[in-house]
Amino acid sequence: MYKINIVSANQKYQELEYRLKEIADLRYASGLLQWDQETYMPPAGAEIRARQVATLSEMAHSLFTGEELRRILEQLKTAEDLTEDQQHNLRLVQEDVEKSRKLPSSFVRKLSETVSNSFSAWIEARRANSFKVFQSSLEELVKLKREEAEMLGYTGHPYNALLNDYEKGCTVDLLDKTFATLREPLGELLGKIAQRPQVDNAFLNRHYPRQAQWDYILELLRNLNYDMNAGRQDISEHPFTINFGSRDVRITTRIDENDLGNMVWSSIHEAGHALYEQGLPYSEYGMPLGEAASLSIHESQSRLWENNVGRGLPFWKHHFPALLNHFPNQLADVSLEKFYQGINQVKPSLIRTEADELTYHFHVMIRYELEKELIGGQLEVNDIPEFWNQGYKNYLGIDVPDDKQGCLQDVHWSHGSFGYFPTYSLGSLYAAQFYRAAEKAIPALNESLAQGDCLPLLGWLRSNIHIHGRKYTSEQLSERITGEGLNTVYFMEYANDKYSFIYNINR
Amino acid sequence: MYKINIVSANQKYQELEYRLKEIADLRYASGLLQWDQETYMPPAGAEIRARQVATLSEMAHSLFTGEELRRILEQLKTAEDLTEDQQHNLRLVQEDVEKSRKLPSSFVRKLSETVSNSFSAWIEARRANSFKVFQSSLEELVKLKREEAEMLGYTGHPYNALLNDYEKGCTVDLLDKTFATLREPLGELLGKIAQRPQVDNAFLNRHYPRQAQWDYILELLRNLNYDMNAGRQDISEHPFTINFGSRDVRITTRIDENDLGNMVWSSIHEAGHALYEQGLPYSEYGMPLGEAASLSIHESQSRLWENNVGRGLPFWKHHFPALLNHFPNQLADVSLEKFYQGINQVKPSLIRTEADELTYHFHVMIRYELEKELIGGQLEVNDIPEFWNQGYKNYLGIDVPDDKQGCLQDVHWSHGSFGYFPTYSLGSLYAAQFYRAAEKAIPALNESLAQGDCLPLLGWLRSNIHIHGRKYTSEQLSERITGEGLNTVYFMEYANDKYSFIYNINR
Repeated sequence: MYKINIVSANQKYQELEYRLKEIADLRYASGLLQWDQETYMPPAGAEIRARQVATLSEMAHSLFTGEELRRILEQLKTAEDLTEDQQHNLRLVQEDVEKSRKLPSSFVRKLSETVSNSFSAWIEARRANSFKVFQSSLEELVKLKREEAEMLGYTGHPYNALLNDYEKGCTVDLLDKTFATLREPLGELLGKIAQRPQVDNAFLNRHYPRQAQWDYILELLRNLNYDMNAGRQDISEHPFTINFGSRDVRITTRIDENDLGNMVWSSIHEAGHALYEQGLPYSEYGMPLGEAASLSIHESQSRLWENNVGRGLPFWKHHFPALLNHFPNQLADVSLEKFYQGINQVKPSLIRTEADELTYHFHVMIRYELEKELIGGQLEVNDIPEFWNQGYKNYLGIDVPDDKQGCLQDVHWSHGSFGYFPTYSLGSLYAAQFYRAAEKAIPALNESLAQGDCLPLLGWLRSNIHIHGRKYTSEQLSERITGEGLNTVYFMEYANDKYSFIYNINR
Repeated sequence: MYKINIVSANQKYQELEYRLKEIADLRYASGLLQWDQETYMPPAGAEIRARQVATLSEMAHSLFTGEELRRILEQLKTAEDLTEDQQHNLRLVQEDVEKSRKLPSSFVRKLSETVSNSFSAWIEARRANSFKVFQSSLEELVKLKREEAEMLGYTGHPYNALLNDYEKGCTVDLLDKTFATLREPLGELLGKIAQRPQVDNAFLNRHYPRQAQWDYILELLRNLNYDMNAGRQDISEHPFTINFGSRDVRITTRIDENDLGNMVWSSIHEAGHALYEQGLPYSEYGMPLGEAASLSIHESQSRLWENNVGRGLPFWKHHFPALLNHFPNQLADVSLEKFYQGINQVKPSLIRTEADELTYHFHVMIRYELEKELIGGQLEVNDIPEFWNQGYKNYLGIDVPDDKQGCLQDVHWSHGSFGYFPTYSLGSLYAAQFYRAAEKAIPALNESLAQGDCLPLLGWLRSNIHIHGRKYTSEQLSERITGEGLNTVYFMEYANDKYSFIYNINR
């Protein structure tokens, strides 16, 4: 006798996959619309582009929160013969759907439209070097994000709702504690550095022609094993990484002819993100296990390549001669040792993306505290410039001369990304912790880097982090790899070792 | 007393607009995925890209043929207080929906996926210079197109179904008649030309560096009033125009350093298409009145700029000095007269897109006859190379040396575009007819072109053709502008006048 009307869990799971991949298609298409908007779109296309992105976002959201997926998920609740990976995917989808259902599709559409317009306003405001040009767009966006926090729900601070959206389980309490353990020892190290003679990095600001920078970085990206057959680099106002499946992972950079560092380390940073995306399991397209673990883990990859590797002595032992080949005149009087010192100069500065890896955390703390008050309602949008400038005065002791070098420098708010910045610090902390684990696991790690071979490290990251997708949370991954959760002690060890050497500090 | 539950026709019409604009968003997003695929996408992205395009196509089709739009259209059937334009839009949407409903969404998805794969196979086949590499993909596609013809329905020949999809009312009978009136007088003119000494165009095949060609054409495109604020040019394997609303209209070209003509006239051609799209009413985004009248009218615009203007003496009177500035060495020994003759050299050749405007029609006739038999089932895919090569032997008296210069030269079949080629000839015929009308309407037309002013002509095209969108059929537009439907006599007059002069033929 046949059992009819009983569909196996496996068939039902395939139905789930079919629907999720369809939603991924929409989301990635929307991603391409945005990539295009920031790279090649002619200016007059902006208005229609905003509605196109909004329509796709709304459709993706409405499919993701709709009845059909709800029905499939309901039927899968009692399924027993799923593999472990299938169960993982199922559990994560259920969580995501539950969270997404808190936001109506109309709200998602409105948010998306507002973001597109805000992005244009931000571009304009930067051109005009005036926060005022951005203000009304941003006000609308902040209003929506406050509403979003209420819809998502939270315990404690409303900002927790937004933090949790980027980093599961992240809270104001947790960040306050983390930054507290960092603030003092980091301040202490910065104090010691300030008492030592400054290292010279003026050679980075000589004239490096545009095309020569571009040619050089493509060579470097290949050496990092960024797969150009499954990626590409373009120019945009603000560097970013975006993917449309793990076999099309793109990065962007910007080139300043009088600042080599701007382009080199932002490219290595984005390549770190891209290497992660290219290493996610292709077969899990559209499924949680095909996605990155979290934003802080994502940032741990970009920071690890940018700083722990890309500002390290072993790496440049191999790469400095090639750099000299590309820029023989500009670097004629610079030795490897001077170069290494110069690219690690520590100095309070205005621009986050150009900051050294120590003061960087203070750039994040300023944004974190600002966003916390902004979402909490203690601060309004028109107070931002003053709050910002005061923060730079207090934490870094510097004056902000204008909005472009101040509160207009980051694209994030124009994207509606509030709660994002803290993941940068978390990523940097994880990077130090992971790099220490990699050094233990790969005894010849620094030697291989010094020979220009980045594959041992990439292989370790692939097998320990990338291949797992979203299977583990940040904390779980950290425990698996390092035996413990996030611990700021590793970053401080790394920082003290490295900068005591560079600044010749007695410890 | 309030009337409740009675929605005004105007509100209902707004609902229609809302839905159609949403569908347009999906279609244009899908268009951007395809633009990207042919310009910047890294190769490994192809597989996922195919499914992304397919998903968006299927969704657009399913919304367009779905219950919600059907209900809105049903309710609008009895509406009385719509404006004339609204009525136009409504009627056209009803027609389109009716036609689309004949194809199930699953078929549309399958077709879209097959097309994406075929495009990759075509690229590969061109690289390998072997039709065999393309054959199995194309077989699958032809099978689907034959099925599509049956689903769409037709009277007479199954090819009529596909022709009608590109050009409303176009049939095998009509094309047979049109080509019949063209074949003899055109053959006669070609015979006369063959008896005269050949004009020299060897200067076009000197070395024109890539970047210099690129810089030159951007300047020329601006002079044609192609709005770079609402468009851009990129490089692709096969030149094309694509738009995402009338304020983002992009063209592509290809550059051969030993063939200036390839790039110049394909760019002017695509600019002709783009000028049309940029002139469509922006406020009618997503509505039929915001779309081009038909493919043949589209092609009339590209041909008119490419040939009637862009290969004309008045145009080059102004532009030749600038060309000389860009390429002083390559053109040192070339006079304007020699240049004009050279760029109008008539000579049977292998590549359609590089053909002169007279033999061009035979390129189209070969493809037309091939497609007719292929869709009709008298010809199979593996017979294509032989049929093709025989056609070139019969009509143009030349031998096809390999597939790349033969049946692999056009992208169209890999896109599933069967029935498209004939619109090229129709467009060329309309172009001659429209240009004659423009000459009558603008007495100083040629003088203004000779002064580098293309605006009088563009203004005339804008107000007589572009602004109307799809309000009139090709035939209706022709009647409004020229007082009669398509008449091949204008093209033959133009051809006889122009080429008798160039080849010094006694008439």
